[in-house]
Amino acid sequence: MRKSKKCSDSFVTMTELVLPNDTNGLDNLMGGRLMHWMDIAAAIAAQKHSNRIVVTASVDNISFSEPIRKGNTVTLTAFVTRAFNSSMEVYIEVTAEDIPADKKLHTNRAFFTFVAVDQSGSPIDVPELIPETDGQKELYDGALRRRQLRLVLAKRMNPNDATELKSLFDMSNEG
Amino acid sequence: MRKSKKCSDSFVTMTELVLPNDTNGLDNLMGGRLMHWMDIAAAIAAQKHSNRIVVTASVDNISFSEPIRKGNTVTLTAFVTRAFNSSMEVYIEVTAEDIPADKKLHTNRAFFTFVAVDQSGSPIDVPELIPETDGQKELYDGALRRRQLRLVLAKRMNPNDATELKSLFDMSNEG
Amino acid sequence: MRKSKKCSDSFVTMTELVLPNDTNGLDNLMGGRLMHWMDIAAAIAAQKHSNRIVVTASVDNISFSEPIRKGNTVTLTAFVTRAFNSSMEVYIEVTAEDIPADKKLHTNRAFFTFVAVDQSGSPIDVPELIPETDGQKELYDGALRRRQLRLVLAKRMNPNDATELKSLFDMSNEG
Amino acid sequence: MRKSKKCSDSFVTMTELVLPNDTNGLDNLMGGRLMHWMDIAAAIAAQKHSNRIVVTASVDNISFSEPIRKGNTVTLTAFVTRAFNSSMEVYIEVTAEDIPADKKLHTNRAFFTFVAVDQSGSPIDVPELIPETDGQKELYDGALRRRQLRLVLAKRMNPNDATELKSLFDMSNEG
Amino acid sequence: MRKSKKCSDSFVTMTELVLPNDTNGLDNLMGGRLMHWMDIAAAIAAQKHSNRIVVTASVDNISFSEPIRKGNTVTLTAFVTRAFNSSMEVYIEVTAEDIPADKKLHTNRAFFTFVAVDQSGSPIDVPELIPETDGQKELYDGALRRRQLRLVLAKRMNPNDATELKSLFDMSNEG
Amino acid sequence: MRKSKKCSDSFVTMTELVLPNDTNGLDNLMGGRLMHWMDIAAAIAAQKHSNRIVVTASVDNISFSEPIRKGNTVTLTAFVTRAFNSSMEVYIEVTAEDIPADKKLHTNRAFFTFVAVDQSGSPIDVPELIPETDGQKELYDGALRRRQLRLVLAKRMNPNDATELKSLFDMSNEG
Repeated sequence: MRKSKKCSDSFVTMTELVLPNDTNGLDNLMGGRLMHWMDIAAAIAAQKHSNRIVVTASVDNISFSEPIRKGNTVTLTAFVTRAFNSSMEVYIEVTAEDIPADKKLHTNRAFFTFVAVDQSGSPIDVPELIPETDGQKELYDGALRRRQLRLVLAKRMNPNDATELKSLFDMSNEG
Repeated sequence: MRKSKKCSDSFVTMTELVLPNDTNGLDNLMGGRLMHWMDIAAAIAAQKHSNRIVVTASVDNISFSEPIRKGNTVTLTAFVTRAFNSSMEVYIEVTAEDIPADKKLHTNRAFFTFVAVDQSGSPIDVPELIPETDGQKELYDGALRRRQLRLVLAKRMNPNDATELKSLFDMSNEG
Repeated sequence: MRKSKKCSDSFVTMTELVLPNDTNGLDNLMGGRLMHWMDIAAAIAAQKHSNRIVVTASVDNISFSEPIRKGNTVTLTAFVTRAFNSSMEVYIEVTAEDIPADKKLHTNRAFFTFVAVDQSGSPIDVPELIPETDGQKELYDGALRRRQLRLVLAKRMNPNDATELKSLFDMSNEG
Repeated sequence: MRKSKKCSDSFVTMTELVLPNDTNGLDNLMGGRLMHWMDIAAAIAAQKHSNRIVVTASVDNISFSEPIRKGNTVTLTAFVTRAFNSSMEVYIEVTAEDIPADKKLHTNRAFFTFVAVDQSGSPIDVPELIPETDGQKELYDGALRRRQLRLVLAKRMNPNDATELKSLFDMSNEG
Repeated sequence: MRKSKKCSDSFVTMTELVLPNDTNGLDNLMGGRLMHWMDIAAAIAAQKHSNRIVVTASVDNISFSEPIRKGNTVTLTAFVTRAFNSSMEVYIEVTAEDIPADKKLHTNRAFFTFVAVDQSGSPIDVPELIPETDGQKELYDGALRRRQLRLVLAKRMNPNDATELKSLFDMSNEG
Repeated sequence: MRKSKKCSDSFVTMTELVLPNDTNGLDNLMGGRLMHWMDIAAAIAAQKHSNRIVVTASVDNISFSEPIRKGNTVTLTAFVTRAFNSSMEVYIEVTAEDIPADKKLHTNRAFFTFVAVDQSGSPIDVPELIPETDGQKELYDGALRRRQLRLVLAKRMNPNDATELKSLFDMSNEG
């Protein structure tokens, strides 16, 4: 029987200092560097869920609305929201702090998907994810819709078969 | 009068070697490292179009279907596909080569958006983009739809106002 | 009146992947790289306690008994154990996991001290630390003895004045 | 018969420029980066003494009293002070120079210990160290006391058996 | 029969942003960092010509007359100019741009040579290079003279046998 | 009156470990990484001679005949051989050691030139270099010839005025 795991089993916290080489000409963190950190935090969460080597399969749309400054402390938290056979969706939240100024900003949220693989690189099944809190259940439910959007955007699903996608237009209420 | 520019004015080619620290436990390039490179290539394209400092505003869904190996040569090409006031959409294509084995794979395509800013970090208008070839015109036309999807996903547009989004379901034919 | 803070106010979790460049000829994490990470985690904890820029003042004896392997996930947790005027003692614990093998090892513990400084680099007072749990109180009590050992080793205190140091010989029971 | 070596056989000089990413918000070298360099310099010294792969076993208390600035040149010298079966104590001195200003500061001294290992990672005996100069003899003699302090602090020796440790209280005269 | 290739078969474009750690105390790109990039770009060109692993055999005199600034975009283009058994000469041109200021400078030109090797590291023959344009033919012709200069400077050729070297004194007209 | 300095005043030793990211597909140190280290070592020597910020002006032909392996210890020594107004020639020697195998190879020698500049980046005169030993005098004498070769190659001197260059053909006896 397939094992199951909880969101808290894959929970990861990662903390990084924004160093000079991470910044652009305005001393703001470059988006690509942040995505690099997101990918590592999310990969560790997916490893924890699957106890396998994992490879990045996709990243969903990310927006960068708040600048993060040189010297800021960036905290990333990540956990698996749902598992589909060998793939896992991971949710990542990013917070930036200017600690000396006592300012803290929730700056980004993102969804990455990973595939668990064996030593030869072939996909391998992972435990089911059982959500517990209301927030986790909402993320779990939304995962199906986001998966269909990913498959449509990657042209691996016919939009007409994306039965959950019509609720895309309700996505704006999701949080 | 607002200046205009062509896709070729912002065209950038970037080449990177996949070094050991860029790879995971299977000696494959980590997705986050590739996104870091994409962001730099795309930022340079947006700088060339706007002659301004630019900041990453968003990245669209990216899928990673083909593993890129340690020692491979990765080539990224990027150019601006459309400008909207102070923002620019940039298209990036990624090719990976195992040169000694004479194997070359088109591995990824992605869309990033950037905002041009002045020295104080305030958004500032950029030249219009005038597409020339058929491929450029297709990317230019699709940019409006992708922009609406971004705004809806970032909850900055009501899905009912996303008039172009209904053609999302034709997006799978786009290329 | 001088503000006070709790251990939990400065609690930091940092997670790192052991990449090839972090390792020696046996594919084990180099001690110096681990100390580099410890210093960053501890500095963030001291920043959180003081809301100031902080500089490393000292590190206590660290022993490295367990090898940490390439590809392992290293988790560092840190918090302030006691404050003395402008200086803070920070306790760091390091855990290494081989997640695919489901093995987890508590590998290191260390004490760093930091001094809070103003923009000109001059020391400035920090809030008091009020311990809450039994474990925190034990660390708080031991901090005085460790401080005297540091001062004696740095030749800034006469050993005869190190009244707490005679209990060094009980330190081996501390945990 | 076990081979012997001199301090000068393991003598290493390492020079580093303090680059922007090595510094904190005050443009001072971060302590953790310096410890990273110390570990590499000391490991090379221990390799030279043992002609073996070496792993860091411990670092003694280090204090950081003098700030080292961005752009400074940091010189580390290291050599083995004493060998115990498979382990070696290495002494490291750090000097920082602001060459354009013609200012040079002796900033740190530290003791690291390393264990020589074979290809499977098992400890293996190393040559004896024979001190020659008065300074080397003093370091050689002190090594026994520092070793007992390390073992007591790591809880691998009962303080009552640390016969040399009573002279800790004379350590302040050592230099 | 030995295959032949054209200059365009090995043409490489590499683009880099000058980050803080790449610069010296005047915020100018350090020469050594630029040479590091040149070596990577040139190695990829030599790989493309030979479809082999390549090792750097030599670099010719390079002069650095124009400072390149932090934040500048550096573009390197490289291609093989001539092949000699297992060795290839690669020509590299470097351009630096301050894009926001719309300033572009041709800053350096260099010649590197590489040797193609098999998996055991032994030299192995590469295709001939057939120049096409006038500029390529001039570089092809000059390659023999530069090769003799390299061999004389490396003391692997008697200057009296360097029949082409007398034209060194016409080299100043070459461009 | 212009101050003078000796070779030993600018003598620098730099030691580096060859880490995985420094190597190519055969686990050999990449030439560009070695040149990066050479440039830093040589720049520190030129700083020591001039007590000024220095910028790389040129590098002479370097050949790479011996592979340096991952895990090797690389030692670079550098000192100024001659000063010309604001410019200095620096001689660098590189040695690579496989310490566990007790193998040591003299792998490279190179000449870099640097210009001393003031805070605005303008060239500024440096002390004269007075050679002392026979080896230093030979390097000092050869510096004039190498300087003429550099100027001819950079097309800043007419070959007919390069009076010392005819002895190029004796250079092969120099060592």
